[in-house]
Amino acid sequence: MTIAEIGGEFELLRRLTRRDLADPALKVGVGDDCALLAYTKDLDLLVTTDMMVEDDHFSLHWQTPFQIGMKLMEANVSDVVCKGGKPKFAFLSICLKKDTSYDFIEGFYRGVYASAEKHGVLLVGGDTTHGSQLVFNIALLGEVEPALFRPRSGARPGDLIGVTGTLGGSAAGLELLRNNRHGHTLDHLEPKSRLAEEGRAVCRRARATIDVSDGLASEVTHLARESGTGAVVYYENIPCSAATIETARLLGRNPKDFALYGGEDFQIVFAIPEDAVSDLRREFDDFSIVGEMTASDGGIRLERNGKFEPFGKGFDHFA
Amino acid sequence: MTIAEIGGEFELLRRLTRRDLADPALKVGVGDDCALLAYTKDLDLLVTTDMMVEDDHFSLHWQTPFQIGMKLMEANVSDVVCKGGKPKFAFLSICLKKDTSYDFIEGFYRGVYASAEKHGVLLVGGDTTHGSQLVFNIALLGEVEPALFRPRSGARPGDLIGVTGTLGGSAAGLELLRNNRHGHTLDHLEPKSRLAEEGRAVCRRARATIDVSDGLASEVTHLARESGTGAVVYYENIPCSAATIETARLLGRNPKDFALYGGEDFQIVFAIPEDAVSDLRREFDDFSIVGEMTASDGGIRLERNGKFEPFGKGFDHFA
Repeated sequence: MTIAEIGGEFELLRRLTRRDLADPALKVGVGDDCALLAYTKDLDLLVTTDMMVEDDHFSLHWQTPFQIGMKLMEANVSDVVCKGGKPKFAFLSICLKKDTSYDFIEGFYRGVYASAEKHGVLLVGGDTTHGSQLVFNIALLGEVEPALFRPRSGARPGDLIGVTGTLGGSAAGLELLRNNRHGHTLDHLEPKSRLAEEGRAVCRRARATIDVSDGLASEVTHLARESGTGAVVYYENIPCSAATIETARLLGRNPKDFALYGGEDFQIVFAIPEDAVSDLRREFDDFSIVGEMTASDGGIRLERNGKFEPFGKGFDHFA
Repeated sequence: MTIAEIGGEFELLRRLTRRDLADPALKVGVGDDCALLAYTKDLDLLVTTDMMVEDDHFSLHWQTPFQIGMKLMEANVSDVVCKGGKPKFAFLSICLKKDTSYDFIEGFYRGVYASAEKHGVLLVGGDTTHGSQLVFNIALLGEVEPALFRPRSGARPGDLIGVTGTLGGSAAGLELLRNNRHGHTLDHLEPKSRLAEEGRAVCRRARATIDVSDGLASEVTHLARESGTGAVVYYENIPCSAATIETARLLGRNPKDFALYGGEDFQIVFAIPEDAVSDLRREFDDFSIVGEMTASDGGIRLERNGKFEPFGKGFDHFA
């Protein structure tokens, strides 16, 4: 039986990971962007880990070693930031190839350190090994005020769905690169996490958050399933940058498909009470309202031209 | 310039990782078995990470998925235990192949959980992706009483060098498997970390510790270099099990070479003041004295038949 046959990556994890684990220090475990652990008197500890594999998460054909290192750190930082946390300590495992050059590794580390410095992260441990393919993993620790942590499961029917920045840029850039076309590829080559203070501004008002790893459709589905709600996304409201719209035009594609099913934009999707939106906008206003959490019997839907339709398929490595 | 040309994995890390990082919470960073971070009022946090790659750290030809999962967790646990800590929370990243079967993953997870339960570890997060080769990474958090943590750098000239259990069993078993020979392979297939209470017994009396990942020669070299001392290992005292001695005989090899240059025995090597040895033996006695830390101008040597000789080459993925 293959992983695709059992229903893909998320189903695999659902079957194999045990969630009924009890430890007084463990506040949130498997199934959120970060685990949440009791830490000091005033702070909780956030922990996340992200693995990147050659020719899947990055390609030597179009990314520099510097960009690869930077993206790995940004992906991890985004998980901590979207939970209202401040990233602190990183642990880097690298699987190199026998013929990987010193220059490659040196550039990769410069990228890791550039992102780490931007976000105040210290790289304090790791492991080095080798294989037939480049694989990089970061485990990142952060800290968060307990009152600020927002689980995926906190949304309630009636909450609005917000998203920071614009979406689809990373996927659109990747599609250009795959087709050997020129254009705006920087959103794919150098995706950026939101900053910790932006994540905290969101978390002070939101009830549930998730970062955009796999596309808006997948992230809203996670929020709704974990919260036991339904959700509707207003197709017209999905924010795409001018560059993403232009890229989609060049490729004869729909920019909102990149936003819904692309991923790796490292923006924050959040469920927020309607009456908290204007308060958030006073402190931080780079976000759009793109939908609403509903009762669970409403299902998870897209509203487009006044009609409801189901989401297409999100990103799953094995589906 | 390749990694071998610059001098291998340890030299690579020496060049690329920055150690001059300052954060009040960071007590020990890059260059020990674990990073040490300030945690609660009474405890510090230990963090380690280990990556295992198909056909390097394990082989589907002779290891079951269960054994692979177990070995990955034991390797990480050993890093925490050798520093006097109690392992607590694990984060598992897995890179699967498109054709990896559900049964494989299910067995692998059973192995991870079997080891986790033995050591009181909870698996609370991770990442799943895919590539052309199986790669597994665990990041493990543990806790330690600040007074018990023993850095690699704490040894002093005159300290004796102790090692728990016996050495060389993993490397000897691997050599049997590579040569399609029958015999005692379990030390390679299912290497076991020492238990947390054994690690604590050692750390209460030792001044410096390290676990056996790369062979006794490599570990003693790390202790001496980090402590600014020399070291001498008494060849005759290196403990090998009867099974390892028999395996070496079958293969026409020297069992002590497996101990010195093999690795992955997950025992603890430690520097201990001579007058603390008998006290340790009253609480825990599965250890041997195999050498002595010396002044740095003595260098790092093996004493064999009354003569001194340099170590051979330890294990380095790129040297």
